[in-house]
Amino acid sequence: MSFALLQQKIDELKNPAVVGLDPDLAHIPPQIIDKYFAEFGETPEAASRAVIEFNINLISGLCDIVPAVKPQSAYYEALGHHGALALKMTCDYAKSKGMYVIIDAKRNDIGSTAAAYSAAYLGSVKIGSAEFMPYDADALTVNAYLGSDGILPFIDTAIRFDKAVFALVKTSNPSAGELQDKLLSGEQSKTLYTAVGELMEEISADTQGEYGYTRVGAVVGATYPDEMKFLREHLKRTFFLVPGYGAQGGSAADAAYAFCENGRGAIVNSSRSIIAAWKTSNESGIHYVDAARKAALKMRDELRNALK
Amino acid sequence: MSFALLQQKIDELKNPAVVGLDPDLAHIPPQIIDKYFAEFGETPEAASRAVIEFNINLISGLCDIVPAVKPQSAYYEALGHHGALALKMTCDYAKSKGMYVIIDAKRNDIGSTAAAYSAAYLGSVKIGSAEFMPYDADALTVNAYLGSDGILPFIDTAIRFDKAVFALVKTSNPSAGELQDKLLSGEQSKTLYTAVGELMEEISADTQGEYGYTRVGAVVGATYPDEMKFLREHLKRTFFLVPGYGAQGGSAADAAYAFCENGRGAIVNSSRSIIAAWKTSNESGIHYVDAARKAALKMRDELRNALK
Repeated sequence: MSFALLQQKIDELKNPAVVGLDPDLAHIPPQIIDKYFAEFGETPEAASRAVIEFNINLISGLCDIVPAVKPQSAYYEALGHHGALALKMTCDYAKSKGMYVIIDAKRNDIGSTAAAYSAAYLGSVKIGSAEFMPYDADALTVNAYLGSDGILPFIDTAIRFDKAVFALVKTSNPSAGELQDKLLSGEQSKTLYTAVGELMEEISADTQGEYGYTRVGAVVGATYPDEMKFLREHLKRTFFLVPGYGAQGGSAADAAYAFCENGRGAIVNSSRSIIAAWKTSNESGIHYVDAARKAALKMRDELRNALK
Repeated sequence: MSFALLQQKIDELKNPAVVGLDPDLAHIPPQIIDKYFAEFGETPEAASRAVIEFNINLISGLCDIVPAVKPQSAYYEALGHHGALALKMTCDYAKSKGMYVIIDAKRNDIGSTAAAYSAAYLGSVKIGSAEFMPYDADALTVNAYLGSDGILPFIDTAIRFDKAVFALVKTSNPSAGELQDKLLSGEQSKTLYTAVGELMEEISADTQGEYGYTRVGAVVGATYPDEMKFLREHLKRTFFLVPGYGAQGGSAADAAYAFCENGRGAIVNSSRSIIAAWKTSNESGIHYVDAARKAALKMRDELRNALK
């Protein structure tokens, strides 16, 4: 769905947060893992079933307070084709509970290959006369290093299916600046990440919807608040997806710079701090949903306070 | 496997070519598609079975003349979890026939997520006390926009499992230069793609193997021969994967600039021109393997001539 629909869900719950569903097996409580190992052995099928149960219970326990989930594709791919099914079932269940689904897969390619990725995650594939929607997410993260050839096929699909993408602009990791912060020659000390952000606004300019955002958002890390401030000022039609909050060190105050003056235009991600909250709280793995819910409420309240 | 083992396979067959297995359903002859539609309906399962048969017959028909295949992940992902299984079965079969397998997935992420991708495609995942190798490819394409944090986890896995990666440096598409050709300030008119190539050589310097190449290769398009010449001169320890030959417009003479003076250090990809050769030749879809073999022999001979 477009960012207008994401913004509506955020407004309804007064919570601009997305929970990252990164089901590293180490985050899943042992009683879930053991149950499926007993039935299916120590296999990718058992692990995938554990992932599905874990995700479904988290989604059920969070959907009335959190508007969106962001499954991180790598953890599903690491379980082979069983993991691909777990990703699909996770997306379907989250959507059935009214949540906005962002698949974090950072896809990138050109031409018909980029079209195949966008069909896979946001659109549909023709199989004979049938139309098959492989994952049907609301949004997908993408990487723009290949230039506009690499993004336009995703925009086409996003328009056709009322979806959206988030392009990596300034990421949250320590070495993000090695390439992204390079100053470009003859462009008044413009950085590469600024050039990427501008290119994304430019090529998506005619896709502006309600609230004024185009269908190409930007990933901008909470760990670089100065760069965040600059980008928010500079890219007024771009919706931001903000990683780096919590475990990676970004605070609610840092993340707050991602929002427009009206309090809109951004969503902040937290993964481990929510889904693996049971590991750091005093609660046992049995109560992992309660632990996640407490952590999600704390994050919501911190963001609300920071945005006052 | 490392690039030394790829170079050995190239030397054995005297053919520095890789066939891209990009099974867009439109490339698969109708008699294969129809057979599986009759059995499984117009479903992703039928389509995936058609992909597997198509790939297996191509691999059987090419493995004595072509040293490597490069499945393009997008086309498999577009068939959901059935497609993930088709990718796995394709990789396994190609390896059983002695071919080097490069999964073209252009993955990119940081920290534990990058580790999960590298485990998925090159390494293994712990499931309880069992070790599971989801795809077990020999090499994987990656995207370096996130900086060294995004590549080092892949290098770790590559060392542990004797594998390799190819990072996008200068891609073959028309808009490749929009970001990649940006001149960097204060670095003696260095381009972004040069900076990416240098960073990759630098962080992989201690992984040099036989023949002198590190475990991080570079994707460099045949459609930009001047840039290719410069990069070959500049990155002496980097093995090149060369897209853009054939359908995209790069000639064998263009691709030849990717090789070191001793004729080593590169592999040239062709996808559609080989696997869908039956569509442009006078042969019917029944003889698609013969058509692919003829096209592969033609490519081999063109490359041999260009490298004389």
